[in-house]
Amino acid sequence: MLIQPRYEYVRHFEQPDQLLPNTWIVVRIDGRGFTKLCAKYAFEKPNDKRALDLMNAAAKAVVDALPDIVLAYGVSDEYSFVFHKTCQLFERRSSKLVSTVVSTFTAFYVHLWPAFFRGDLDGGGGDDNNSNNMNNAAVPLQPPLLPTFDGRAVCYPSVQNLRDYLSWRQVDCHINNLYNTTFWALIQKGGLDPVEATEQLKGTFSADKNEILFARFQINYNNEPEMYKKGSVVFRDYELVDPASHSATAAAVDNLAAPPVVSKSKAESDTKRRHKARITVEHLDIIKDDFWERRPWLLTGQPGTLPKQL
Amino acid sequence: MLIQPRYEYVRHFEQPDQLLPNTWIVVRIDGRGFTKLCAKYAFEKPNDKRALDLMNAAAKAVVDALPDIVLAYGVSDEYSFVFHKTCQLFERRSSKLVSTVVSTFTAFYVHLWPAFFRGDLDGGGGDDNNSNNMNNAAVPLQPPLLPTFDGRAVCYPSVQNLRDYLSWRQVDCHINNLYNTTFWALIQKGGLDPVEATEQLKGTFSADKNEILFARFQINYNNEPEMYKKGSVVFRDYELVDPASHSATAAAVDNLAAPPVVSKSKAESDTKRRHKARITVEHLDIIKDDFWERRPWLLTGQPGTLPKQL
Amino acid sequence: MLIQPRYEYVRHFEQPDQLLPNTWIVVRIDGRGFTKLCAKYAFEKPNDKRALDLMNAAAKAVVDALPDIVLAYGVSDEYSFVFHKTCQLFERRSSKLVSTVVSTFTAFYVHLWPAFFRGDLDGGGGDDNNSNNMNNAAVPLQPPLLPTFDGRAVCYPSVQNLRDYLSWRQVDCHINNLYNTTFWALIQKGGLDPVEATEQLKGTFSADKNEILFARFQINYNNEPEMYKKGSVVFRDYELVDPASHSATAAAVDNLAAPPVVSKSKAESDTKRRHKARITVEHLDIIKDDFWERRPWLLTGQPGTLPKQL
Amino acid sequence: MLIQPRYEYVRHFEQPDQLLPNTWIVVRIDGRGFTKLCAKYAFEKPNDKRALDLMNAAAKAVVDALPDIVLAYGVSDEYSFVFHKTCQLFERRSSKLVSTVVSTFTAFYVHLWPAFFRGDLDGGGGDDNNSNNMNNAAVPLQPPLLPTFDGRAVCYPSVQNLRDYLSWRQVDCHINNLYNTTFWALIQKGGLDPVEATEQLKGTFSADKNEILFARFQINYNNEPEMYKKGSVVFRDYELVDPASHSATAAAVDNLAAPPVVSKSKAESDTKRRHKARITVEHLDIIKDDFWERRPWLLTGQPGTLPKQL
Repeated sequence: MLIQPRYEYVRHFEQPDQLLPNTWIVVRIDGRGFTKLCAKYAFEKPNDKRALDLMNAAAKAVVDALPDIVLAYGVSDEYSFVFHKTCQLFERRSSKLVSTVVSTFTAFYVHLWPAFFRGDLDGGGGDDNNSNNMNNAAVPLQPPLLPTFDGRAVCYPSVQNLRDYLSWRQVDCHINNLYNTTFWALIQKGGLDPVEATEQLKGTFSADKNEILFARFQINYNNEPEMYKKGSVVFRDYELVDPASHSATAAAVDNLAAPPVVSKSKAESDTKRRHKARITVEHLDIIKDDFWERRPWLLTGQPGTLPKQL
Repeated sequence: MLIQPRYEYVRHFEQPDQLLPNTWIVVRIDGRGFTKLCAKYAFEKPNDKRALDLMNAAAKAVVDALPDIVLAYGVSDEYSFVFHKTCQLFERRSSKLVSTVVSTFTAFYVHLWPAFFRGDLDGGGGDDNNSNNMNNAAVPLQPPLLPTFDGRAVCYPSVQNLRDYLSWRQVDCHINNLYNTTFWALIQKGGLDPVEATEQLKGTFSADKNEILFARFQINYNNEPEMYKKGSVVFRDYELVDPASHSATAAAVDNLAAPPVVSKSKAESDTKRRHKARITVEHLDIIKDDFWERRPWLLTGQPGTLPKQL
Repeated sequence: MLIQPRYEYVRHFEQPDQLLPNTWIVVRIDGRGFTKLCAKYAFEKPNDKRALDLMNAAAKAVVDALPDIVLAYGVSDEYSFVFHKTCQLFERRSSKLVSTVVSTFTAFYVHLWPAFFRGDLDGGGGDDNNSNNMNNAAVPLQPPLLPTFDGRAVCYPSVQNLRDYLSWRQVDCHINNLYNTTFWALIQKGGLDPVEATEQLKGTFSADKNEILFARFQINYNNEPEMYKKGSVVFRDYELVDPASHSATAAAVDNLAAPPVVSKSKAESDTKRRHKARITVEHLDIIKDDFWERRPWLLTGQPGTLPKQL
Repeated sequence: MLIQPRYEYVRHFEQPDQLLPNTWIVVRIDGRGFTKLCAKYAFEKPNDKRALDLMNAAAKAVVDALPDIVLAYGVSDEYSFVFHKTCQLFERRSSKLVSTVVSTFTAFYVHLWPAFFRGDLDGGGGDDNNSNNMNNAAVPLQPPLLPTFDGRAVCYPSVQNLRDYLSWRQVDCHINNLYNTTFWALIQKGGLDPVEATEQLKGTFSADKNEILFARFQINYNNEPEMYKKGSVVFRDYELVDPASHSATAAAVDNLAAPPVVSKSKAESDTKRRHKARITVEHLDIIKDDFWERRPWLLTGQPGTLPKQL
């Protein structure tokens, strides 16, 4: 290829953006203008199962495409992707990591849309047996209003910081879902308009909302679907381990100072085990220690034992 | 919304990434792994008109969605989007700008794919009357190999820097296209294999390649389609002006120190004129002054005069 | 030198901090805790000529040590050093530029202190013939309270941005000096205490302060020393030019896209002329065009004509 | 103060530079052009005790001025200052931290110079009873060649990263000092010129250098002064603790996720104990665990027990 001596200098305006080594990288994406999108495509309120299933399917595809991701957590129109602190993908360049995650997520979300927002009730990826589902007709995407997402990368130095970040998102999920469930019950079942519902919920605590749901609408919040209450966790699934034997994982991982030098054969066997692992979507409590202690591979980054039945 | 005193602190790990004020922002996106993608979806070589038309359609949608973009330039599987130096979109945060452009581009690329990569010859967005088109059959996207893009933002302080950046991309387009046209002629018409073709082109200059094309394959490179030779420029179209009257535009724009304070009515009328303007895709020389001097609105950021016929 | 395979990895935690090319770099330093320092070393109020002369001497030494600096502007305990936009010193690394300026300034400030804050009236660097000077006794520095400075680097993309930055500092100088001159006149000559003086000046405009000074203390603010009213500008001095011939300098400089490639002999002759030039400290209006148009070398970065008499 | 609507906008060009929370901040300073400085002021080779004592005195002053520094380590003309990972000084802004450390260090280095580089043998800060000291005459600083330093800030996420950084510097100290001691013995005692000495040491290992020193110059490297072999560590001194009781300190500190909220009275008592603590300069092995386990306050950031005798 010829050189371009005259214009070549413009290359030097690109500034490096590598993220600090030995820190957990979280790329969080958020739906852009989803209020408008939800209205246009008639998302069900307070939760549209098809939309959440589609988010989860797109997140699974991202985790599948980028094996450096150890875990993803999603709620509503946001998803957080966690890269292990030893990750060297794209030399840890922020723009590359963020844009790749956002683009891959968007590509799958748009491509899979027809499989989730469709008319038939019994096939494909979407599973629409929601009792009050009024969206059985196919809902094709209509440009220019397509679903899009923005993103950002944030570094967390320690396991505790990472877990606190994820706990923050899951507590947010709970707070928002309890609010929204009550808000929409007041409207859909109680006949209030949004202004009245907002007014009614002003200053209420969790217990008050639970009480409104139960006393007025016979809804026991605890029986709401786990996906709505807890959000969704995506990860590679291995055999669970006895938590007692792994209580020191976080300290060991924090103590890990640099990406370990692994033999080529070990690296290849790790990659194989990662590809063989099933990527699962679950709706679990990720705040408590138990989730982490039973799945030490999430923090160590070392693939676990593949279950027998696979 | 309730506060989360325990986890709230994790917010402070997000670091600011605003780009320097009063500089031109270029967000460039690049296809990820397009060699593999081209192979899987049987892109024509050296140029696949359907794929380029689809790139241009997605770029138009991005320019339409983000009025702060004054111009976009695309070649092959890359596209550069230029935000005016006074742009305040997303407070000039790099991650937001990059991820929004990448996500919007990806969403339209994936959504419009079936309209461009399809079997019938006479409908929709793609215009496939390429003489040696062997891809008339529909080519549905097949996950997990979906088209995705990465991106980055770069700042250019002066008009000259910005124009040099764009000239660099257009010179690159020319160099690569001349090479590829000759390379694939040697293979497709000359019967060489890729190794032989590479060998034959080693050390050749432009004149040599032109000569090979003409003498051996009766191809006059000058008659190749403009889109292949010059790439594609996307911008809002207004009435062209007499270049003589605008020779000082660049200096005036460089001299512009801060976003001007405009009255609300002026801002609204500007927005209207921007929305009324047709977004055009052309294949022009953007290296020479003429392109810029006849379209002063590209550098001033002020909408021009809407053509009568619209 | 031996390699340290075990610990060597820690090098990768240092993150790049190059400043955007083709922008003016201003390193501004500010005295740390100078309120306390002024009290301890009995600085005269509202202006201590010895302290300002010392600031200027230290700034001259910085400009002398770093020929990439085209101009410095100082007021009170702050100084701004302007590096030309083509500057490549330390690869434009922010930390290196800031720390070098701050360290050099501090070294000279501390080293020269005894020459400026001393007992005798007729020698050396300080020129203490201030009428109400009550500090004729030597004032040795007494650790731990030594004068120190912090600093930061800021980039300005265009000549207008740079000039607006400097104008901002000079307007600040004027506003603060008029206030302080009036404030201390009320105290030193009017017998007010600081609280009363503050109260008296609350809500006053410039005209009011001029009036207080003149009517009550027979001080014509216009006759105050230029150094107090305008601050100090430090630059290499060449023959002034006819401003008419250089009205287009700013546009030409903005248009300069990349550091020009200069022959080795031209570079050497430039360096010689820079070293021969006298570094001057003046108290001029740097807001108006005249200052810049008569000294085109400040913006072009090209050394001017050395005056005959040198 | 009046507002400056016209120029005020230039404030927005300053870009934020806060360092990632919950990471150890190391500000390292390095002498600028010390080869030239050593030559001009006739520093003794391979080590000038006066210069090292002056470095240590300046470092002590920095640690004294900035209580957020938990430890400093110096060798030759460089010094590393470690701020605790919970440090909030200057909102963790990199420029402020770096420039403050560099300026304070420079101020003390220049101010204390006469006390360390002086003619008399029995007074002040310097302790010059070096056998072959040929610098007994006072060595005043002569501008423009004053000692100056540059600096940079680097973040380390974990205790292990921080300790590995410091180990890296101490191993470097050892390697360089062994080399320099042998190199200068070959010149000063062996009569070689620098080129010959360099040649002789090419490809030698540590054992070879030890052997040269012992066999040819009767120098047992182990008997060289600790300051030369190990560098200098500066820290607040409290009562040493039994290492057995603190083996888990590093894990506990890594696990610390955010600056702890402390009561005002606890904060005040901590500050008092910090101020009462003696700042000590020692020449110890900081690579081994023992140093850290006996001084848990270095990692916890919590002041230890003040020794009785103070």
